[in-house]
Amino acid sequence: MPDFSIGVDLGGTNLRIAAVSVQGQMLEKVTLGTKVAMGPDHVITEMCDAIRQLTEKYGRSGKFLGAGLGIPGIIDLDTGTIRKSANLPGFSEYPVHAEAEQRLGTRVLLDNDANVAALGEQWLGAARGVPNMAMITLGTGIGGGIVLDGTIFHGMNGMAGEFGHVTVEPEGYPCGCGNRGCAERYASATGIVRMAQEAIAAGEAPSLAKAAGADAEFSAKSIYNLAIQGDEAARRIFRRFGRALGIMMAGLVNILNLEMYVIGGGVASAWDAFAPAMFSEMRERSLVYAATAPEDPLGTAGQAFRTTKKTIVTRALLGSDAGLYGAARMPVL
Amino acid sequence: MPDFSIGVDLGGTNLRIAAVSVQGQMLEKVTLGTKVAMGPDHVITEMCDAIRQLTEKYGRSGKFLGAGLGIPGIIDLDTGTIRKSANLPGFSEYPVHAEAEQRLGTRVLLDNDANVAALGEQWLGAARGVPNMAMITLGTGIGGGIVLDGTIFHGMNGMAGEFGHVTVEPEGYPCGCGNRGCAERYASATGIVRMAQEAIAAGEAPSLAKAAGADAEFSAKSIYNLAIQGDEAARRIFRRFGRALGIMMAGLVNILNLEMYVIGGGVASAWDAFAPAMFSEMRERSLVYAATAPEDPLGTAGQAFRTTKKTIVTRALLGSDAGLYGAARMPVL
Repeated sequence: MPDFSIGVDLGGTNLRIAAVSVQGQMLEKVTLGTKVAMGPDHVITEMCDAIRQLTEKYGRSGKFLGAGLGIPGIIDLDTGTIRKSANLPGFSEYPVHAEAEQRLGTRVLLDNDANVAALGEQWLGAARGVPNMAMITLGTGIGGGIVLDGTIFHGMNGMAGEFGHVTVEPEGYPCGCGNRGCAERYASATGIVRMAQEAIAAGEAPSLAKAAGADAEFSAKSIYNLAIQGDEAARRIFRRFGRALGIMMAGLVNILNLEMYVIGGGVASAWDAFAPAMFSEMRERSLVYAATAPEDPLGTAGQAFRTTKKTIVTRALLGSDAGLYGAARMPVL
Repeated sequence: MPDFSIGVDLGGTNLRIAAVSVQGQMLEKVTLGTKVAMGPDHVITEMCDAIRQLTEKYGRSGKFLGAGLGIPGIIDLDTGTIRKSANLPGFSEYPVHAEAEQRLGTRVLLDNDANVAALGEQWLGAARGVPNMAMITLGTGIGGGIVLDGTIFHGMNGMAGEFGHVTVEPEGYPCGCGNRGCAERYASATGIVRMAQEAIAAGEAPSLAKAAGADAEFSAKSIYNLAIQGDEAARRIFRRFGRALGIMMAGLVNILNLEMYVIGGGVASAWDAFAPAMFSEMRERSLVYAATAPEDPLGTAGQAFRTTKKTIVTRALLGSDAGLYGAARMPVL
């Protein structure tokens, strides 16, 4: 039996714990509800119990190499605390790292959930074999992670990769971060629903108004379904989504010039609705992308040269397991 | 006498060659005019002659470690050619690297001028002792360079750091790169003059119109002089400059979370005219900057936490020698 590590995805709804072999095989995955209301101590105790069960089971035949935790929110890597997490209220300033290490008596690594997802996709997913990449996770908001030379790039104190709060509309919609026109105000599930509500309120989208009235669970997914059925108001929303994402991506490519950008998260499944507008913006707005795009069907005007190496923008492959794989990868690196 | 290397700044106007000791002492600096009209072969021959004179002189008492060249434009690192350079017409696709190595019989390293300036400031300037930093060079356009762990971060093929073409106004002024609203359309000498011309044409700036009429050499510098004398139209231009730069910088900080951002280039001397607007945008638009800014005089609303480590944004120290020092540093790394 192989040596293994533990990856944890500590989300606001689910607490998932996996034993993963050093070769990247998922040995076992446990899913619990995250009892946020019971407080951080209770949640961490449940997590440690589950980790212990897995390490006892798989530790009989392989060496246990440590545990990695992916956590939504801003992590202070120096102190091992959660600084800010919308999904884990009550965890602010809680010393997750110290508590987990003490209870488990083993090495525990902590990171932001978007960073570990990036590491997972780099290790075993869309960017397997590509040492330098970024991952953009489209969900309620936008998460971001950068991997350089096969390890997470943290920046000064773990805050690198906040792609969702890059400005794409200087006078745009206000964001909770204090800015206006952040990319995630448009290119996220929340953004889709808000744009639909605005279009309905402005009387510009009778089809959406009708669908919203008939569907108690009117969501980003409902709007996507209308878009792929050809509804023009819904399609317009996804074009705005793609435009905002494309402006942000153009900036990323101009700044980082990485080999690959992987787009994941639940909302990435709307790829066919937003990707054409995204790629169009990227070609127009990034001279680096225009010079390095794999193909040039638009015959980008004014572009004097094209490089041999290509920039790949593609969909994630591992779904919600990316974070588990990435978290399990951390103790091994 | 110390071991040394040669740094070259191959600009569109001046060709500067310096012998720099491994300890970072400028031993000698030679400045020639770049005879672009004579063609690349002529320029490279002149450069190699000057390098040879310096290496012979200083090679008597110290070991020569190689030469580094900083070149304005997009360099293909894989082939050692200049892909595109507005300042060096006739150099496109010219094999600078191969020609220089052949003539000199020594190791020659090539890089973009903004990258070598960043390396110079990191080695001996404002970011001395700071391993991870970015430099933003404000001149005719905006140059950018990223240094990680004390070496230039190139990205996939040397195109990382194109900060000047990050979109700050999605529907803004067209740029030669094919985009609209690039940061350098506002935060550069060219941008200042264009904004002044527009304000004059719109009849919004009689003071600038008068100054432009009286001054045959009406330039970004003239507009800066009016701004520091309190002219409101000129001040408005520098606020737009600072705003555009601040939007771009906010994105950089959100994406990279580096220890330091150094602002250099000739136009950085207008710091007092543009910096207040730049910092104000950065605080509002970057949650990472808001959490890490050295001081918080604005008492940024909604900011729940502040980190111990601070993000420093500061002016460059080495002036136009940054590129020479950085170029000379390359063969030593």
